[in-house]
Amino acid sequence: MVYLTRIEHFNAAHKLYNPNWTKEKNNEVFGKCANENWHGHNFELYVTIKGQPDPETGFIYDAKKLGGIIQEKIVEKLDHRNLNVDVDFMQGKLCSIENLVVGIW
Amino acid sequence: MVYLTRIEHFNAAHKLYNPNWTKEKNNEVFGKCANENWHGHNFELYVTIKGQPDPETGFIYDAKKLGGIIQEKIVEKLDHRNLNVDVDFMQGKLCSIENLVVGIW
Amino acid sequence: MVYLTRIEHFNAAHKLYNPNWTKEKNNEVFGKCANENWHGHNFELYVTIKGQPDPETGFIYDAKKLGGIIQEKIVEKLDHRNLNVDVDFMQGKLCSIENLVVGIW
Amino acid sequence: MVYLTRIEHFNAAHKLYNPNWTKEKNNEVFGKCANENWHGHNFELYVTIKGQPDPETGFIYDAKKLGGIIQEKIVEKLDHRNLNVDVDFMQGKLCSIENLVVGIW
Amino acid sequence: MVYLTRIEHFNAAHKLYNPNWTKEKNNEVFGKCANENWHGHNFELYVTIKGQPDPETGFIYDAKKLGGIIQEKIVEKLDHRNLNVDVDFMQGKLCSIENLVVGIW
Amino acid sequence: MVYLTRIEHFNAAHKLYNPNWTKEKNNEVFGKCANENWHGHNFELYVTIKGQPDPETGFIYDAKKLGGIIQEKIVEKLDHRNLNVDVDFMQGKLCSIENLVVGIW
Repeated sequence: MVYLTRIEHFNAAHKLYNPNWTKEKNNEVFGKCANENWHGHNFELYVTIKGQPDPETGFIYDAKKLGGIIQEKIVEKLDHRNLNVDVDFMQGKLCSIENLVVGIW
Repeated sequence: MVYLTRIEHFNAAHKLYNPNWTKEKNNEVFGKCANENWHGHNFELYVTIKGQPDPETGFIYDAKKLGGIIQEKIVEKLDHRNLNVDVDFMQGKLCSIENLVVGIW
Repeated sequence: MVYLTRIEHFNAAHKLYNPNWTKEKNNEVFGKCANENWHGHNFELYVTIKGQPDPETGFIYDAKKLGGIIQEKIVEKLDHRNLNVDVDFMQGKLCSIENLVVGIW
Repeated sequence: MVYLTRIEHFNAAHKLYNPNWTKEKNNEVFGKCANENWHGHNFELYVTIKGQPDPETGFIYDAKKLGGIIQEKIVEKLDHRNLNVDVDFMQGKLCSIENLVVGIW
Repeated sequence: MVYLTRIEHFNAAHKLYNPNWTKEKNNEVFGKCANENWHGHNFELYVTIKGQPDPETGFIYDAKKLGGIIQEKIVEKLDHRNLNVDVDFMQGKLCSIENLVVGIW
Repeated sequence: MVYLTRIEHFNAAHKLYNPNWTKEKNNEVFGKCANENWHGHNFELYVTIKGQPDPETGFIYDAKKLGGIIQEKIVEKLDHRNLNVDVDFMQGKLCSIENLVVGIW
């Protein structure tokens, strides 16, 4: 079995903020990450697939096609966006890196 | 002469947007960077100083003190902030990396 | 299940030296790492935890608290230290990276 | 159980080309990677071993010896070579990174 | 004055070989880099420009346009190519990194 | 004019300690870096040369020879050493990175 990891990048704004809490509690729990006016990061997304190499191509899957799928399905929606506001699958969720990974998955 | 570079980090949101232009012109010139709801980056700030080592300490300047000054004067104002909204020395300027560097300087 | 890795850094001196062996045997087995007067490294410690994101915070565990625990329990004891001499849990053990990892764990 | 990863480097030329296909089909499937006159990369090879530290040395295996074995058995055959032409265990195979990893293994 | 560096990447094959010398002399001077069947590398090209930020855009020059020019004029000619064989401005020159940089310039 | 930078690595122990000061003053000025039992780092040494490429070799200077000279004259003396104790050109000097660079130069 061979594993292949494709890395893609995106840049986005977000904040950590639970709307059911007071501003004070948000600041206490999330600190600077709760800044009302947003902050942001560069993100690196590692996508790993596994399989047997195809004898015709030597590929378990065409890495460029994989990159294209990640671009179309994920990066297009996240890059240069506001993760809390602009991303459909993050609506109504705490915008942590954990929930983002679950949402991407 | 010895050069010493101190690297500090901060994470911030921003957008590239010229308020004297239409939304269309902003999108044309700045592309995805003009996204109304902000996007963000990790930033690395390199500060380089030069001098002769002090014979008593071997330092041209105490790198920890330099780090402290950068933290207090710069990172404190930029980290987990919105560069367009929250930063005094960026008010009324295009929020490009070039203008940010000039502002820090 | 979500995995989260926190990376912390420390700088320390050590040597590889088995006191039950002659100096010659130590040099033969450990080479330059046996240098009597110590040598040193920058170390990067990767601590990985796994869990389900808490719906209130989006966190599997607060990464800053995790960082604080690693600082207090591990980095405080190792950073800018001599791993052979200054670290309680390395007493009487060969000071290899493998034993250090086991000791930290 | 302790895991130890040794990283070695090599630089090599290759191309992705299936001799059973037309030139057009190769260009279609492999794109620029099919360039007749070769292209090349820097490669990083991660070899991971696991075991219990030996109480005499603190090692699960001497990392320098491991490096020497990788040098002798693998890097010697691949570094500054043409992976399609110069490497015995890649003869008659598509020269993808997946097949290279399987061949090294 | 503000400096801005754009980094672009390409992957290419090459060899170091002086056709006026014997094979022995080439091996003696260039070692493994003289391998007849080529070897290859990943290359990173740093292009630095300087200027004053334009008050309308905040840019000294549009970094994406700069990237496009580098792609069109340089990377297009070098990426997934054989630097000795496929690149017009390297014909008849020793294919060293120094001559490549001069050629790009 | 072409610039070429060669990077070499070494690992060493050191401490920052001025023998003309009390232990308290050393701790105050140098903090954890004054730890009596040493600490250590990985070091990266960047050596930059400049010149015109030789038409015969394409080199401004053979980078492997340059590496060999750095190994012989510098790394051999510093790698897996105690910079305060084992290195002739650091005797009687504060063992700061600035003085180390001046000493190497």
